Amino acid sequence: MRPSNQGVAAGSPIGYSARLMKRSSSPKNALYAQSGGVSAVINASACGVIETARKHPGRIGKVYAGRHGIVGALTEDLIDTSRESAATIRALRHTPGGAFGSARYKLAGIAQNRAQYERLIEVFRAHDIGYFFYNGGNDSMDTAHKVSEIGAQLGYPIVCIGVPKTVDNDLALTDCCPGFGSAAKYVAVSTREAALDVASMARTSTKVFVLEVMGRHAGWIAAAGGLAGRGRGAAPHLILFPEIPFDQGRFLAKVKDSVESYGYCVIVVSEGVRDAAGKFLAEAGTRDSFGHTQLGGVGPVVAQMTQAAFGYKYHWAVADYLQRAGRHIASKVDVEQAYAVGKAAVQMALRGRNAVMPVIVRKYSKPYRWTIGEAPLAAVANQEKKVPRHFITSDGFGITAACRNYLLPLIGGEDYPPYAAGLPAYATIEGRGVARRLKQGFVL
Amino acid sequence: MRPSNQGVAAGSPIGYSARLMKRSSSPKNALYAQSGGVSAVINASACGVIETARKHPGRIGKVYAGRHGIVGALTEDLIDTSRESAATIRALRHTPGGAFGSARYKLAGIAQNRAQYERLIEVFRAHDIGYFFYNGGNDSMDTAHKVSEIGAQLGYPIVCIGVPKTVDNDLALTDCCPGFGSAAKYVAVSTREAALDVASMARTSTKVFVLEVMGRHAGWIAAAGGLAGRGRGAAPHLILFPEIPFDQGRFLAKVKDSVESYGYCVIVVSEGVRDAAGKFLAEAGTRDSFGHTQLGGVGPVVAQMTQAAFGYKYHWAVADYLQRAGRHIASKVDVEQAYAVGKAAVQMALRGRNAVMPVIVRKYSKPYRWTIGEAPLAAVANQEKKVPRHFITSDGFGITAACRNYLLPLIGGEDYPPYAAGLPAYATIEGRGVARRLKQGFVL
Repeated sequence: MRPSNQGVAAGSPIGYSARLMKRSSSPKNALYAQSGGVSAVINASACGVIETARKHPGRIGKVYAGRHGIVGALTEDLIDTSRESAATIRALRHTPGGAFGSARYKLAGIAQNRAQYERLIEVFRAHDIGYFFYNGGNDSMDTAHKVSEIGAQLGYPIVCIGVPKTVDNDLALTDCCPGFGSAAKYVAVSTREAALDVASMARTSTKVFVLEVMGRHAGWIAAAGGLAGRGRGAAPHLILFPEIPFDQGRFLAKVKDSVESYGYCVIVVSEGVRDAAGKFLAEAGTRDSFGHTQLGGVGPVVAQMTQAAFGYKYHWAVADYLQRAGRHIASKVDVEQAYAVGKAAVQMALRGRNAVMPVIVRKYSKPYRWTIGEAPLAAVANQEKKVPRHFITSDGFGITAACRNYLLPLIGGEDYPPYAAGLPAYATIEGRGVARRLKQGFVL
Repeated sequence: MRPSNQGVAAGSPIGYSARLMKRSSSPKNALYAQSGGVSAVINASACGVIETARKHPGRIGKVYAGRHGIVGALTEDLIDTSRESAATIRALRHTPGGAFGSARYKLAGIAQNRAQYERLIEVFRAHDIGYFFYNGGNDSMDTAHKVSEIGAQLGYPIVCIGVPKTVDNDLALTDCCPGFGSAAKYVAVSTREAALDVASMARTSTKVFVLEVMGRHAGWIAAAGGLAGRGRGAAPHLILFPEIPFDQGRFLAKVKDSVESYGYCVIVVSEGVRDAAGKFLAEAGTRDSFGHTQLGGVGPVVAQMTQAAFGYKYHWAVADYLQRAGRHIASKVDVEQAYAVGKAAVQMALRGRNAVMPVIVRKYSKPYRWTIGEAPLAAVANQEKKVPRHFITSDGFGITAACRNYLLPLIGGEDYPPYAAGLPAYATIEGRGVARRLKQGFVL
């Protein structure tokens, strides 16, 4: 696959030997790819991967990035990150979204779609890629694990290291997931602020305020809303978790009690709340003109219930992407952990580890101390960590002290981006492509 | 109405005389009240009023605050702000919401409900209130103006000064309104952040993202979303203004063009968008179980239109109170102006002005220079300043350079609140009440 050395002059044996040595020890390139829903700090992990790799030019060649993640890898659409300045890479640390593009594209099992995996190995081989850093959640860790297996089978061993990322905080074996702390901080701060607004107005206006947050299966982000206040009467007065089946009667009784006791009621609701039959509440909400339901809309659904029952004036907000892109209010701890797992992934690769993922290990909660550990991809893949029952109060509507102790360190510290003319100065990559080497394209 | 001086010892003529002098020149108290929807910086105006009044103890006695604004004034439920520490008052500068409580309670015209105005004057007289600082929007300026008129008619002259406040930025005669700059910054920053998220994912996921913002009649906040990006392809790709009748065909064509040209489409929509017949688009949206419509919901309505027409995957966010309570991302200019109008209101009162409101006067845009001017309440009351047509691009979907020049200075600078344990440390007032002096209550 490599160009031959026939152009080397026979009369310069030292140069020839040096070139041969360089060639024979020529370090493999790396592929970095972002996967799934992005976060406020996934680019901080990219920054950690690229900056660390750049410190080891004798061990790792260029770092390529898949344009739109695994999609770019399959279609041989690679970005050459070595063409990006050090300043741009540094600025990724404070830039939300996925700077190289991410993808919702789950590779099927090897048995079902071997061609996809073979294509990946073909692209890796064509671009001399020996390291694969896959930055994502549960599905992505499964994919990275399979890639490491198939590479070995096809005689092209590839070092596959997962880089954990998910605002949902549902990855197994890591104490927390980079991306979550910043979403949690966004929701806790927003709940505290909106609650002050509602408390001001409740005497003559809005009595019920609902903030809908992400979390289709796990209620970690909703739980973070509980950090907004503490003690009797403090908002939020209710949290609705996907882990607790929704009971309309008990919900309404709690809302009524809150309004009558404190004058108002602030509710944080997870998009994934379901009734006892397992049906999403959001499905009772908006439908498009074809009658299709789309999740996102449980906020207005529960708000309207309170009006129907008691006539309360309500308002609702749906944070949607704002909560996972809100880099302006990122958690400093989260930014540091996101960078650290990117850095650790490269260090693990250099130590000869394979099919593993760096994880966050909590040493103490007060004061918060953490370190980086390691977990096998096979053990992480396709697991899902929900909010444990003992983190939720017995009535199902709040968080316990244990949950608070777990969550509070994760929103610790501020890490403001630089501003220019009133707006955060976020990085934009040049994104120059790597010349294609394969004749065949690939249809997704 | 006052306790007599009979307890003063006759044998201490100097003390007696001093007390008499103090008594005879005893300064009038002031009433401060918050009105209408609160903002991230209305408490900064309260801070400006109270701190400035405290510097003139010989001219202004105590500053009372209506608990829940005018409602507290009518029901004689007053907060004695002199019982609040200097540190608490100072901390109001960085605390969102209405610390003393606000109200949506519009006083009818004098002719229709003279009793309300007479009651106000009765409360003022009972508590020796000579100054009324009313912190609100259009309706409130109308009320303050009427109070000054009726006070004169009833032989109890009262100095009435308006303190401008509205996130809607629709007050006449002032270049901008305290509260708006911070909401504008929130929306501009959020749009920029969410757009980075959508751009990352668009290849395989969400193609259309809609952010719904406040502004029932005026599109100032929606216009601020336009600051998020500049130039061809930059988000937001569309802004929907209440000033421009919604045309579904033209809207869909623009969305399609954006998706086909840039891969995605970011839309900022004002809650008050109407069709050509003047009907709110939001009314086509969610209904409660009684079939009542409630505004708030135009975001999902326009998002669904794009799916129905083109099958685009969409997401939508509704910022609701988060945008007007988002003190964590307040504009420094806005905080300074909010404080300045509070301070100026007191200074105007001390200069003998009446029935006026301090306004923001723009001297230059680049660099931004502003000063405080004065406008008569009669000229401000019940006006409504909409986004002028030349601030909106000819296609009706964007902002012009003139609009950008107007808006950009208003989101200038950051003014972060202090944090403790990962959350903003917002002030809570003690809120001690003033002893009632009137026998009769008042039914609202």
